[in-house]
Amino acid sequence: MKLILDLDTGIDDALALAYAISAHERGEAELLAVTGTYGNVDVEQGVANSRALLELLGHPEIPVIPGPQKPGFEVLEISSFIHGSNGVGNVALPAAPEQTITTDAVDFLIEAYRTHGADLTIIPTGPSTTIAAAMREAPELADAPVVFMGGALTVPGNVTPLAEANVIQDPAATDFLLRTGTNVSMVGLDVTTRTVLTKKHTAQWRGTLVGDIYADMFDYYIDAYAQSEPELGGCGLHDPLAVATALTPSLIDWLPINMMCTHEGRTTGDPARFHTEVTSRAAVGVDIDRFVDDLMARMAELFGKSSADL
Amino acid sequence: MKLILDLDTGIDDALALAYAISAHERGEAELLAVTGTYGNVDVEQGVANSRALLELLGHPEIPVIPGPQKPGFEVLEISSFIHGSNGVGNVALPAAPEQTITTDAVDFLIEAYRTHGADLTIIPTGPSTTIAAAMREAPELADAPVVFMGGALTVPGNVTPLAEANVIQDPAATDFLLRTGTNVSMVGLDVTTRTVLTKKHTAQWRGTLVGDIYADMFDYYIDAYAQSEPELGGCGLHDPLAVATALTPSLIDWLPINMMCTHEGRTTGDPARFHTEVTSRAAVGVDIDRFVDDLMARMAELFGKSSADL
Repeated sequence: MKLILDLDTGIDDALALAYAISAHERGEAELLAVTGTYGNVDVEQGVANSRALLELLGHPEIPVIPGPQKPGFEVLEISSFIHGSNGVGNVALPAAPEQTITTDAVDFLIEAYRTHGADLTIIPTGPSTTIAAAMREAPELADAPVVFMGGALTVPGNVTPLAEANVIQDPAATDFLLRTGTNVSMVGLDVTTRTVLTKKHTAQWRGTLVGDIYADMFDYYIDAYAQSEPELGGCGLHDPLAVATALTPSLIDWLPINMMCTHEGRTTGDPARFHTEVTSRAAVGVDIDRFVDDLMARMAELFGKSSADL
Repeated sequence: MKLILDLDTGIDDALALAYAISAHERGEAELLAVTGTYGNVDVEQGVANSRALLELLGHPEIPVIPGPQKPGFEVLEISSFIHGSNGVGNVALPAAPEQTITTDAVDFLIEAYRTHGADLTIIPTGPSTTIAAAMREAPELADAPVVFMGGALTVPGNVTPLAEANVIQDPAATDFLLRTGTNVSMVGLDVTTRTVLTKKHTAQWRGTLVGDIYADMFDYYIDAYAQSEPELGGCGLHDPLAVATALTPSLIDWLPINMMCTHEGRTTGDPARFHTEVTSRAAVGVDIDRFVDDLMARMAELFGKSSADL
């Protein structure tokens, strides 16, 4: 399978990227590109972070393609608290070489789907702005497999009681995605807040340049969560879980349901489509141990240590 | 098993009662009593309706025990639109004989659980006022199996975008039930709006006194739904589904989840209990055909016609 990650990079986006690179190196999936969106940071910062992380992870050849930013966008206070003002926990990342990009994210998604069809899975981990714009421009994209991190179906939001941080940025885009897409999987707070990482985990990453950087980023993130959502006992693994479920859907208990997104950013079932064909599904349960064990094994490999060292 | 139905009778409550009487007559469950609550109607009207329906269904010996009513309660406009001003679609029911009741619903529930333990299932189809009061008064009642019709986890409410009609009457009681009960099953709009009855169904009930009365009530209800929720294409089978799932849990796809009810009447997952033992479950899917076929077969029996006549 082919993957495109649409990232607003972001600490958990950084781990989603590492997860995708692990799959890429194992030959399970080919990461075609990263597209850059806004949310945790603005598009420019997110693209710079993704470039630096790909350099760090040994894959500077993978393109990072900027997407549209919401006019007047400003990073939410809660986002910069959680992710640091540079999006990666105020950790300094190595410089990445210049890249020349001659397309934009919307065109790239459309072209990639025309080339690869259902073999391509698109994984937005920020607002639905880019994927919705692509579906509007090229209606055939409605059938593209999309696994997005965002929303909250059976639990409260994390920015408001109704809204999750990604969808609140562009509820109309998420609504369009949910109503238009015919193969949409929502990986929301319902499951991502159950998969928790602690400093016991990050301690196991240390000992190499890349492992230390990831551990530093996540320790920052875990400290922020200890203040913002102490009841979790660690940080949520939002974006990495979306990538993991795209590769291994059986990690998840899926509820087939036609959803909508209200203008307040609430993702919920759409009563007008209770009795029509179901075109999307929501993650409502997750095999926590299997996911975290898999993630830790991959990161041990990727960060340069064998699992036996753990 | 033993059943107690806590009804605010109500047209769909009337069918829940018929379903329970069917189980009672088949020897699948013993209906110990009906307790009377408020919601679709006030307690007095609900008790009178339950008494009249039990007379009609040939079981005047089953007691109907009034429960507490919320101070200042008035029937919501939407409730009297949906159920008629007398709660049963303005259909005239036969008079029931006087009964002498020397207990109240709260004490009766407590006493019944002390006698029957986990063999007793309590099925509230109105607000959670009575069951919550019983759990407050007798903490051991926390372990009683409770299957309640109410709430909306994955879909919008039907009184407000957040709230379902039963829980909005007493959100604090539903919250107490969800946080206190250790064996709580929520049968909410998530499933009850998927199980739809039409006039094609009610036409099959006609031909006997009781069948005609039930068909008249439901035709009123279906006409009201055609105006209030035309997208359903019929009326929801809210309360009968709760009784059916108490008898046959396999009709339902259950999501194990610790829930809460906000003061606005939103039933949702409780983030503070994501990582504690799960003590409740929500119905998120239903085998529609199996339920409706079963219901129709039972009503054919109960209303005096064999299934072969259908």
